[in-house]
Amino acid sequence: MSAGTGLFLSFEGIDGSGKSTQARRLAEALTEAGREVVLTREPGGSPGAEEIRALVLNGDPDRWSAETEILLFTAARRDHLERTILPALERGAVVICDRFADSTRMYQGLSRGDLRAQVDRLHALMIGREPDITLLIDMDPEEGLSRALSRTGAEERFETFGLELQQAMRRGYLELSREYADRFRVVEGAGAPDVVFDRLQAALPELFGASA
Amino acid sequence: MSAGTGLFLSFEGIDGSGKSTQARRLAEALTEAGREVVLTREPGGSPGAEEIRALVLNGDPDRWSAETEILLFTAARRDHLERTILPALERGAVVICDRFADSTRMYQGLSRGDLRAQVDRLHALMIGREPDITLLIDMDPEEGLSRALSRTGAEERFETFGLELQQAMRRGYLELSREYADRFRVVEGAGAPDVVFDRLQAALPELFGASA
Ligand SMILES: Nc1ncnc2c1ncn2[C@@H]1O[C@H](COP(=O)(O)OP(=O)(O)OP(=O)(O)O)[C@@H](O)[C@H]1O
Ligand SMILES: Nc1ncnc2c1ncn2[C@@H]1O[C@H](COP(=O)(O)OP(=O)(O)OP(=O)(O)O)[C@@H](O)[C@H]1O
Ligand SMILES: [Mg+2]
Ligand SMILES: [Mg+2]
Repeated sequence: MSAGTGLFLSFEGIDGSGKSTQARRLAEALTEAGREVVLTREPGGSPGAEEIRALVLNGDPDRWSAETEILLFTAARRDHLERTILPALERGAVVICDRFADSTRMYQGLSRGDLRAQVDRLHALMIGREPDITLLIDMDPEEGLSRALSRTGAEERFETFGLELQQAMRRGYLELSREYADRFRVVEGAGAPDVVFDRLQAALPELFGASA
Repeated sequence: MSAGTGLFLSFEGIDGSGKSTQARRLAEALTEAGREVVLTREPGGSPGAEEIRALVLNGDPDRWSAETEILLFTAARRDHLERTILPALERGAVVICDRFADSTRMYQGLSRGDLRAQVDRLHALMIGREPDITLLIDMDPEEGLSRALSRTGAEERFETFGLELQQAMRRGYLELSREYADRFRVVEGAGAPDVVFDRLQAALPELFGASA
């Protein structure tokens, strides 16, 4: 593939919606079809970004203010973009990123409206790049929670990832999908992994043909 | 002192111009006069900022791009401001900061004009605050270099802190003092520490009276 023909895809969706599962499947299918695929994720995705992430997450949870945190996460994203994503796109690879800037927008938008505005301005100033296509796996949070529970069996996850918060996140993502309608594609996440993957292929005619 | 009556002072100037020496003297004089003084410095100045600084400076020197670096330094400055400077000003203290945002402006302005613009926009967005008064210790770089040499005796410092670069820094600082004329005060740095400190007091009538 010649330089600059790469495609930058991101996966978004509430906890347990199947982002990592579908991202992996997509990577496998495209690799089999002969494309170079770079599967990456946020937060993290490059050695420097992982170090910044560790700095943010280690220690006392409120040792950083929300503003310092978004600066650190933007620094990590800039590194991830420069060192992992852009070089891969230059080579013509398909970059599949498990969460990207929309996750930050959604979380900050939920917690403080003024932070969402700061996140957007920081993004415009220091990141600039959006995915070409963002796949939003949309599903009822109760379904996601039951998957999470079947994984760990731990009741406490109901509290950690409370249902109301998950519902607010779902709404937040659906709002983002309207705000950035040109690049979002909403994929229904209910059903078995194969069923979801069929929908995903249908949502990506440029990669799988018009009637996958 | 009642809350909000604090005063935020910064020291700027080329390497070896006497910033740390004069900042310490000023802190001592004001403490003797009964003021609460917080003497701090950049990069660093709070535990979080020190950790970010260590992350930037450790390891391979070009593992971070210039853009990632200014994001990390802005994160450190935000933490320093929130955790050290603003609380002290709230209490009515005099905060004396050995280098602040002007150092970043000067260095980035010298290396890449477009970075200077990004630094300014990041500052406006995430920092916002400038010192009330910035004391620029201005001096001939050759004088600063001879002081540095007399300290270490090492010839190599001529290369590390080359004279041309120091002259460009001096010009950069003098340009900043015109750009931010409302808060900059230029203090001639030649002469013995006592002589410079007399000039410093004369430049601060709000602290030392009109004819110190
Ligand atoms: N379609 C599906 N049906 C049932 N279980 C699924 C489905 N897709 C994924 N799972 C399972 O649900 C769990 C969550 O899936 P996955 O890790 O892919 O979600 P995620 O969106 O990446 O979650 P997180 O937000 O926590 O990273 C996993 O145990 C996975 O095996
Ligand atoms: N007025 C002065 N005359 C002679 N020597 C001085 C004077 N002021 C400071 N020095 C000495 O010069 C050296 C540099 O001073 P100082 O550390 O205060 O400068 P600085 O501007 O903080 O330098 P840096 O940019 O490296 O932090 C020190 O050894 C100090 O003792
Ligand atoms: Mg996942
Ligand atoms: Mg010093």
